[in-house]
Amino acid sequence: MNYVLGIDGGGSKTVCVLMDENRQVVSRGEAGASNYQSIGIATAKQSIEFAIMAATDKAVNITKPITINAICLGLAGVGRKEDIEVIKSVVKDLQNSQLLPINWALPTNNILICHDALIALVGGTGNSVGIVTAAGTGSIVFGRNHQGITKRVGGWGYILGDEGSAYRIAIAGVQAALKAYDGSGMPTSLIDIFKVYLELSNLENLVELIYRRGWGVTEIAALAEIVDLAAALGDRVANQIIDDAVQYLVVATSTVIDTLFSDRPVLEVVTTGSVWTGKAKMHQRFTASLNQNFPEVKVIFPKHEPAYGAGLLALQKLQHISGK
Amino acid sequence: MNYVLGIDGGGSKTVCVLMDENRQVVSRGEAGASNYQSIGIATAKQSIEFAIMAATDKAVNITKPITINAICLGLAGVGRKEDIEVIKSVVKDLQNSQLLPINWALPTNNILICHDALIALVGGTGNSVGIVTAAGTGSIVFGRNHQGITKRVGGWGYILGDEGSAYRIAIAGVQAALKAYDGSGMPTSLIDIFKVYLELSNLENLVELIYRRGWGVTEIAALAEIVDLAAALGDRVANQIIDDAVQYLVVATSTVIDTLFSDRPVLEVVTTGSVWTGKAKMHQRFTASLNQNFPEVKVIFPKHEPAYGAGLLALQKLQHISGK
Repeated sequence: MNYVLGIDGGGSKTVCVLMDENRQVVSRGEAGASNYQSIGIATAKQSIEFAIMAATDKAVNITKPITINAICLGLAGVGRKEDIEVIKSVVKDLQNSQLLPINWALPTNNILICHDALIALVGGTGNSVGIVTAAGTGSIVFGRNHQGITKRVGGWGYILGDEGSAYRIAIAGVQAALKAYDGSGMPTSLIDIFKVYLELSNLENLVELIYRRGWGVTEIAALAEIVDLAAALGDRVANQIIDDAVQYLVVATSTVIDTLFSDRPVLEVVTTGSVWTGKAKMHQRFTASLNQNFPEVKVIFPKHEPAYGAGLLALQKLQHISGK
Repeated sequence: MNYVLGIDGGGSKTVCVLMDENRQVVSRGEAGASNYQSIGIATAKQSIEFAIMAATDKAVNITKPITINAICLGLAGVGRKEDIEVIKSVVKDLQNSQLLPINWALPTNNILICHDALIALVGGTGNSVGIVTAAGTGSIVFGRNHQGITKRVGGWGYILGDEGSAYRIAIAGVQAALKAYDGSGMPTSLIDIFKVYLELSNLENLVELIYRRGWGVTEIAALAEIVDLAAALGDRVANQIIDDAVQYLVVATSTVIDTLFSDRPVLEVVTTGSVWTGKAKMHQRFTASLNQNFPEVKVIFPKHEPAYGAGLLALQKLQHISGK
């Protein structure tokens, strides 16, 4: 039996699935973050190793020995050649690891390193064709068509892009509250909701929190929940923010559809990320708006997790080779 | 003869003017940054001391001895009580400094510590009434009326506010270029202008520059010049960005006018900061738009620098006391 590893490495955790040649997940493990640009390559490597260990330790009790014939790593922020070289050397090191209870039979060709949007697409749709519209802390829209052509829109990070993301919704909410507070914007219940939720005596303390306590992108993005709640409660300003976010994601997704599926847009759009599960019905708004122009597009939630998608991609490598 | 010190402490430099009781600047000195929240209190104190030394060293050659009877420090980001206490202790230390060739006769009441918008207003108008619409790296609108009532709009910093500022214009320009690049936005010459100006082979390298080289707010804000240039050359997208910036500053300024000068808005609005001197005629656009609603408002460039305004405020303290 052939086995492959599918790995999803992100900013908060690393997931590894061990998959057999029949697309069955034999076992699954988790470890800490592995976005090496933020945490350093040594820590990232350790997280990947631990995730593999967590997955394979369980498996060897059932089936042994296990020989890995292909691996796919989908990693946040990995796109440039330099990044791929760094990760390739990590994989080389893993093959010499004393910790892992597995054997390797891994031709260079069977090592696939890609960005996290691709594995989210493959896991989300269960195949390699379609679009993923990701809107969590950050945002990106990525698609691949039947010819294997890919297209990306957005994903420019929290300073330059990420419209439609939780971070940008949160920032827009705080900005709107501050504008209502200083009189330069429309009144909004966001002032009171932020104050109650964050236990602030004064809205200006929010500025304090964000600048002086050094809140990062993740902490700020968590405030999107408050904006979502205010929108669900009927606040006009909050609803405008949610609509703007939806509208950007519709434009970005439409751009990918037009580029890749111009002939006949029958496809699945997978929505991933925290913004889709709020109370303000972003998912419904998005689907309704997208279907106005593309009635045959199906907006779905992921069928499988990204690590599963990585497993499928690793399997393709295997079949590609064995089919030669 | 009575003397006062007016000090303007900012993120890039500290300016000190020595002013006599007839509002005459006897001498002027400069030193490094003194925004203590970023650089620490020791360095900030040193910059303030050096600026005073630079100003007074020159003066003692002309007039001596010099006794300082009042001081006003206008400092970026200083507004909270805690900040004011910190700066008060700095002034105490300065009075014991061995470096300064001056005497002090400084009742606690004659020490005025305020934020930089107030001294910009007083310096800019040459008196204490009016509005300052500041749009440099950051933005804030601040006004004071004949009753001494003040009102501030904006000034929430680069993450939460600063609309109309160079930083926000720059970010909007880069975002627009990236959207044109990935197809989700309108075409714009900003792509080519950024590439040529920053010598990039590919626009995506800009993302590299900003995230991986750790560009700060100041470096990013400098890109506003490019957006301004593109607007002056007729680019529609860039002109929209400039118009949005102007429109925010008009709304913010109008909010202050409505709050403070509702009866009869005959007043001066002083524009300070780098955005007003670009090639895209932001100053003219702002004036035209503001005058539609407030035809009697005069939009002016500063008559004097902020440190001069600090000197005038220190002098008011003096006259207030001696008039008792």
